[in-house]
Amino acid sequence: MSDKIEPHLFVILGALGDLAQRKLFPAVYNLSASEQFGENHIILGVDLDDTLNDEGYRASIQGVLEAAGLAVNADQVNYWCDCRLHYQSLGSGGGADFQKLATRIEALEQEHGLAGNRIFYLALPSDAVPNVVKGLGEAGFNDSPGWTRLVVEKPFGWDMASAQELNAGIHRYFNESQIYRIDHYLGKESVQNLLVFRFANAFVEHLWNREHIESVQITVAESLGVESRAQYYERAGAIRDMIQNHLTQLLCLVAMEVPSAFEAGSIRHEKLKVLGQIEPIHPDDVVLGQYSGYQQEDGVSAQSSTLTFAALKLQIASWRWKGVPFYLRTGKHLPLRCSQIVVAFERAPVSIFHPSKSEDDVKPNLLIITLQPDEGIDFHIQVKSIGDPISLTTQQLSFHYADAFGTLPDAYEHLILDVVTGDQTLFVCDSEVEASWGLYDHLSGNEAISINSYEAGTWGPEEINQLGAPWHNPES
Amino acid sequence: MSDKIEPHLFVILGALGDLAQRKLFPAVYNLSASEQFGENHIILGVDLDDTLNDEGYRASIQGVLEAAGLAVNADQVNYWCDCRLHYQSLGSGGGADFQKLATRIEALEQEHGLAGNRIFYLALPSDAVPNVVKGLGEAGFNDSPGWTRLVVEKPFGWDMASAQELNAGIHRYFNESQIYRIDHYLGKESVQNLLVFRFANAFVEHLWNREHIESVQITVAESLGVESRAQYYERAGAIRDMIQNHLTQLLCLVAMEVPSAFEAGSIRHEKLKVLGQIEPIHPDDVVLGQYSGYQQEDGVSAQSSTLTFAALKLQIASWRWKGVPFYLRTGKHLPLRCSQIVVAFERAPVSIFHPSKSEDDVKPNLLIITLQPDEGIDFHIQVKSIGDPISLTTQQLSFHYADAFGTLPDAYEHLILDVVTGDQTLFVCDSEVEASWGLYDHLSGNEAISINSYEAGTWGPEEINQLGAPWHNPES
Repeated sequence: MSDKIEPHLFVILGALGDLAQRKLFPAVYNLSASEQFGENHIILGVDLDDTLNDEGYRASIQGVLEAAGLAVNADQVNYWCDCRLHYQSLGSGGGADFQKLATRIEALEQEHGLAGNRIFYLALPSDAVPNVVKGLGEAGFNDSPGWTRLVVEKPFGWDMASAQELNAGIHRYFNESQIYRIDHYLGKESVQNLLVFRFANAFVEHLWNREHIESVQITVAESLGVESRAQYYERAGAIRDMIQNHLTQLLCLVAMEVPSAFEAGSIRHEKLKVLGQIEPIHPDDVVLGQYSGYQQEDGVSAQSSTLTFAALKLQIASWRWKGVPFYLRTGKHLPLRCSQIVVAFERAPVSIFHPSKSEDDVKPNLLIITLQPDEGIDFHIQVKSIGDPISLTTQQLSFHYADAFGTLPDAYEHLILDVVTGDQTLFVCDSEVEASWGLYDHLSGNEAISINSYEAGTWGPEEINQLGAPWHNPES
Repeated sequence: MSDKIEPHLFVILGALGDLAQRKLFPAVYNLSASEQFGENHIILGVDLDDTLNDEGYRASIQGVLEAAGLAVNADQVNYWCDCRLHYQSLGSGGGADFQKLATRIEALEQEHGLAGNRIFYLALPSDAVPNVVKGLGEAGFNDSPGWTRLVVEKPFGWDMASAQELNAGIHRYFNESQIYRIDHYLGKESVQNLLVFRFANAFVEHLWNREHIESVQITVAESLGVESRAQYYERAGAIRDMIQNHLTQLLCLVAMEVPSAFEAGSIRHEKLKVLGQIEPIHPDDVVLGQYSGYQQEDGVSAQSSTLTFAALKLQIASWRWKGVPFYLRTGKHLPLRCSQIVVAFERAPVSIFHPSKSEDDVKPNLLIITLQPDEGIDFHIQVKSIGDPISLTTQQLSFHYADAFGTLPDAYEHLILDVVTGDQTLFVCDSEVEASWGLYDHLSGNEAISINSYEAGTWGPEEINQLGAPWHNPES
């Protein structure tokens, strides 16, 4: 592995922010301290605070790592901070500040014998991204003696127009091969395993089509409400926050054709093909909801029409999928936190065991792929109940990741390592982002779709039954 | 259930024998005491001993049930024996003795208000069967005011000719609808579940053919040697003792087409079709063995050429199976006791994860159906190993009967209950027995096939590798 890692400088912009402290530094520390970043690399935190120096920053990150339970060996953390970690203020974020950043980076690279391979991780509020990209570009950071990689976090815009504007703004300075758009769902072991399950097991691919599948449903259920994220969430809502990105990406992985290889170009090509084959979603096939009490949450408008729940049915006009309904569903304050893909296979056309039963009484085989929290695969099959006369019951063929592998690595670690090795396979490209917005733009604020109320702790508004989905609710 | 049970008399001939005491009485007691035989029934033990009366026999069976660990409540066993159990001597087994038996049975039926429904369970050495059948027939037991059922244990002959003779001898007095030939493998929950798995799960039936299956292997491994059974085994050997019956029956269940219904006529029709489609087995496709030390066992001839191991390859000339090798294997003194069916599915034609790998390097999906001792289904699938870069490992989707249902009922209980309810589905018919001998007759004593020695505790003679099977040895 580490022979693919080149000496590099890892710059985190927004290094004092919540994302950097909560997610990135624990991941970066784990990877770096275990030598997965190679021998020669340094990490430069960049933020606005101009009172902080390297020492102060190291002390603060030491605290972050301790809080994350990573400072089992305080000396080691201390040593790592001293060797690897630096800080640079971006002051007010003007052009001169970016020039100062350039000078600092060149000095650090010279000091550590680095050849100019640079990662810029934008751990920033979405409003700040365009300016920072511009600043980096105009300071010449889109070019270096080595390679340059820019990591961008969602939201990738708020609709098609703003996504296009964001992409265009980035492309003014950086080309697509330099850009790593993170959807952390794609970093989950269980999500990658979805592709392995599909394409390394011939029997799966053989069954994976309209001849054998009755329906597919993808559920991302959150048990929490909006909590402290009202400022972001009021503007986003369930479709922008979840459906347009995570659920649509999962849909692409479930529905795509066999790629030529497991590499960025092939995977992106197949995902784009799926996005292009999705038929326009009719407003009648959409059920929206807001949990009761949402308007009373801190930071939420008393007249808020923000969606905390969305469920919809879509169709893919391809030879593989035509006629198979795909159901997407997500919401806050649902009974439990769980992300699941449920594939319902065809039923036995007749029951030789109970000939009087109609086809509808015969249960379909459900393939349940759980992405979190207990990653695994459960395949519902009919088996014989004990005893005589013969009767059938549903049981499960099961595989759970934890049984085989123990604790799974964090999705962020996986994706950050991919950035460092230059593998874009699990990152989202510009065309995917835009095609994905294209699916949902007409639903936002569409007055033909009412927003239904639902009680916290339920599976959403009753109206979801109108979609005709055989909803399978995960169990704790 | 019990509303299908009619009042009846259950006669066990050979009531003092090993089979009756070890297997039948515990099963009959469990079924009878738990009211599964209905309210009105009695059990009549019949054997040669003419010194025994009802009381003495009851005391002896009480001991048998205690030894089987069933006498948790001694009063209950006592009460059951008093109410249900009778004994009748068959003396020297002449015509007059059968007449005495008839008189006793009529008297018992009158006493208990039974209408003449009778089961005759022949728990007898095979040599005794023809005479007892004749005695029963000539005493008029093939006809009664109710129904008559005759239960026959294996061996069903020693080759095609003797099987035909045995069948003809039975048919002289009883018709096929009265005859229940027991293959206790068919009473196992896991064997019946094989049919449920195949025919209640549409995806299985879809994959179950030459397009998707590379090979099938059926293993019945015994860890014991010949032990105290040399007298029988010297004459039988592995093909007659195991392959011709148990393994061939399992083969039929694996290979048969979808029956119209789960009932005797349909199932027998489909099994016979498979037997008729099996191509003649070439001596080159057979590997025979005898464990070293067998000739020194008690009761074994020092020049014995009895087979304690047999493995063979066969082909089924049907649209479903043409070209798919089926491997059967059984032996004594193998590393462990286990009965398993292993279905190897097609491999992925290319690996998108490791494009350099040839098809042969990609592992096939194995479906492993364990019939004993830990009944269940394990489906080997390729999953993603933890970490980066992507690599694959084989894991299992698993279902084990004990996890879902606890201890499984004894196969004998299941089959005896089927006799009482008159369900022949899990019993072997005359044509099956004869067709099955037809497959193997030319292998017995065939000098073109050498008998290889193998060490106890190994998986048989090395020569089995010549069959080209991807042998999957069960693990403890």
